[in-house]
Amino acid sequence: MNETDILARVLARIKPDADEHRKMQEVVDHIFALIKQVVSKKDLSGVEAVLVGSAARGTWISGEHDLDIFISFPGDADKEDLKTKGLEIAKEVASNADGFIERYAEHPYIHADFYGFKVDLVPCFGVSSAAHIRSAVDRTPFHNRFVLVRIRGLEDDVMLLKQFMKATGVYGSDLRTGGFSGYLSELLVIHYGSFIEVIRAADEWKPGVTIDINKHGTRKHKDVLVVTDPTDPVRNVAAALVMDKFVSFINAARQYLDKPSMEMFFPVPVSCMDDDEFSMILNKRGTSIVVVLFDKPDVVDDILYPQLFMLHNSLKDMVKRNEFSIHAGDVWAGESKAAVMLEFQVSELPFVKKHTGPPVWAKQHAKQFNDKYQQQDKQDSVLSLVYIEDGRYRVDISRKYLSAADLIRHEIHTCKLGRHVGESIRSGFTVLEDIQVADIEDYSFRVFLKGFFHSISGIT
Amino acid sequence: MNETDILARVLARIKPDADEHRKMQEVVDHIFALIKQVVSKKDLSGVEAVLVGSAARGTWISGEHDLDIFISFPGDADKEDLKTKGLEIAKEVASNADGFIERYAEHPYIHADFYGFKVDLVPCFGVSSAAHIRSAVDRTPFHNRFVLVRIRGLEDDVMLLKQFMKATGVYGSDLRTGGFSGYLSELLVIHYGSFIEVIRAADEWKPGVTIDINKHGTRKHKDVLVVTDPTDPVRNVAAALVMDKFVSFINAARQYLDKPSMEMFFPVPVSCMDDDEFSMILNKRGTSIVVVLFDKPDVVDDILYPQLFMLHNSLKDMVKRNEFSIHAGDVWAGESKAAVMLEFQVSELPFVKKHTGPPVWAKQHAKQFNDKYQQQDKQDSVLSLVYIEDGRYRVDISRKYLSAADLIRHEIHTCKLGRHVGESIRSGFTVLEDIQVADIEDYSFRVFLKGFFHSISGIT
Repeated sequence: MNETDILARVLARIKPDADEHRKMQEVVDHIFALIKQVVSKKDLSGVEAVLVGSAARGTWISGEHDLDIFISFPGDADKEDLKTKGLEIAKEVASNADGFIERYAEHPYIHADFYGFKVDLVPCFGVSSAAHIRSAVDRTPFHNRFVLVRIRGLEDDVMLLKQFMKATGVYGSDLRTGGFSGYLSELLVIHYGSFIEVIRAADEWKPGVTIDINKHGTRKHKDVLVVTDPTDPVRNVAAALVMDKFVSFINAARQYLDKPSMEMFFPVPVSCMDDDEFSMILNKRGTSIVVVLFDKPDVVDDILYPQLFMLHNSLKDMVKRNEFSIHAGDVWAGESKAAVMLEFQVSELPFVKKHTGPPVWAKQHAKQFNDKYQQQDKQDSVLSLVYIEDGRYRVDISRKYLSAADLIRHEIHTCKLGRHVGESIRSGFTVLEDIQVADIEDYSFRVFLKGFFHSISGIT
Repeated sequence: MNETDILARVLARIKPDADEHRKMQEVVDHIFALIKQVVSKKDLSGVEAVLVGSAARGTWISGEHDLDIFISFPGDADKEDLKTKGLEIAKEVASNADGFIERYAEHPYIHADFYGFKVDLVPCFGVSSAAHIRSAVDRTPFHNRFVLVRIRGLEDDVMLLKQFMKATGVYGSDLRTGGFSGYLSELLVIHYGSFIEVIRAADEWKPGVTIDINKHGTRKHKDVLVVTDPTDPVRNVAAALVMDKFVSFINAARQYLDKPSMEMFFPVPVSCMDDDEFSMILNKRGTSIVVVLFDKPDVVDDILYPQLFMLHNSLKDMVKRNEFSIHAGDVWAGESKAAVMLEFQVSELPFVKKHTGPPVWAKQHAKQFNDKYQQQDKQDSVLSLVYIEDGRYRVDISRKYLSAADLIRHEIHTCKLGRHVGESIRSGFTVLEDIQVADIEDYSFRVFLKGFFHSISGIT
């Protein structure tokens, strides 16, 4: 199949049809009417509904039923007023929905469910220019306007790029993914002109590549990709993109250019790893596995994942400080449980450990070190005389934890723990080693295992 | 015992008495007469004998029977003449000795044994100033003259300092020791004024400390101690001093100031380690020991030790490159055998090993790496798909050597081997592990073992 055919077939699967468009328009019209009604009842002049996001721009993908509807207050409205009255309006509108919850960003908003659509009702200030925004969300309508007048005729390309990014695992600027936002993908298409030109450009990208559509950027960014916000010269739209998602996109782009295929848009789902494969992998690799398993805190992913990453990094630092050596590690969260999994090259160490003291010429420190470690008979943990190596005092002492699992069991509380993960860990956790990890039967954990080992057998 | 008493008692043991002085003078007179006789027989006008070194300066220690006698040719003599005729004279003189051998520095000289004295008969050019020296040894007579006129009254202090340095293991600028030369110890006493002032100064030394008695130094040196040669402004007399001997002297000086004792001049000899203690130490430490044992090449220490150090460093580099981890290491040479001994924190590793490829954005290298490792079915050694981590491609491959001893057994030939050690290794070597090391019964090896572990029990 040639590239044109492939893209046509992808679009046939992801482009919303007239029926889907109509349904969405009906829902939008309905909610707009509700907002108008509530606003007029409350006699709030100047407050109006604004549709933003991919629905407003015609760049959403079939089956995505997300609506971002902003309740825009006059630019000079009172901040407290917007907070209370904005939320009142949103709640009253949402009282007609199939259900709703209150969520928090810089100020509260409502997430509601209307006829199968997930709708965010977000109060904002309708300021006159992007330079005068009063809260972070006020920027969105400007993004909307910038994209709307430039995206006509490019909607298909944006849809193709979003689908390609989803398939590659790099779509979404949420804190779990650290990938490309919808707005970023739209700007890339506007800048490069088409899906395929974005792909060709990515094949040449290097960290630090900079795109400034308006040529108005005023700040240096250290991010891997810098796309100056056309509505804000100091902001990098790609600030949330992490290194490995950046290069994964480059890698996928290169593979696509080498051999385009439907599979690059619709990958075969990863299978899960059964007990036999897991024990075979353990034998084949010879490494040790340690999993810290605990109850998953009941918070949204954008709160959960940064805390899981923090725990992962803090555990890695701790085991390295203690001279164990790590091959790989990752975090997982299922329905009710969460875990950090570490694979060790070295998970056991001998009793003796070299303790490094000050340089011999650092007189004061040298004295303290010698005073402490020369009283050998008082300390069972001191295994040698103080000696000199590479200009410094050293002494052989006994290691407290001979295994990484033991270290983690006893010292996890000294790791950097986010609030919710910390609470969960303090209320209990399990450390599983090697074949014990197969006790976790959760299907999504078994899928995670398959990915963890980059297993060759996992692909076919 | 107070310090004055200690120093008096040390001197009583190390200061040559009148009898010893007389005997030395007799030997010197005898050799001078022989040289005069040979020179006159050969009709070599302007060639004369010069006594240099500690014997000439009255700074030798009782029992040291080393004589440095230079056969000084006119400063403008022919280089080839000096080489052949100088050696002829030395050989003819030495034919009266109890035995002699030819040795090589910049040019050949004779090492002879006269009545129990070890005598170096060294041809040199008697140049008019140190600025005009024609071979490295020509500098020595200038050192001699500089010290002679300044050392009167300080001989005892030099002897004390030399004895203190011997006891500390830092005396000798040979390539095995990397310590303080006799000339250097004399300059230190001249500069600081006495033994105790040298000790007090060393207590404050830091790497890079610079002493320039003549204030004529013209060159920056990066050595840990810089003592500008009073007879040569570009030369650092302490260039051979290595970091750990430098700081060992600082450490000993500090201990002496804290608590002076006879033991600091005459330490209790280190005992040797028997089988029981060795196996107890292995159990207590939990580390793995690997000893590479081979025939000791029949060369002098100044040739042997640099090659042993080179092998030691090259082995350390190799095992680290292969991700094993070392706790300690040292070299040993006995009568007929030599060895490098390594103590490992990690001497065994799992089958799987992470192989790091190029950054994803390095297009050409990326392609080569992927081409090589994506044909998994062709390679049993590839254990995973190519994956991305920290911006680079990686792939899990199988490790060739699971143990450090195996690695060394099979790859020692790829290490940097000096000429003589290389020949010996190529003709055969043994790798001993853990308790097998106790197969080496050599007494000096057992003393070496005691020091290797800085064992607490080794001191009392």
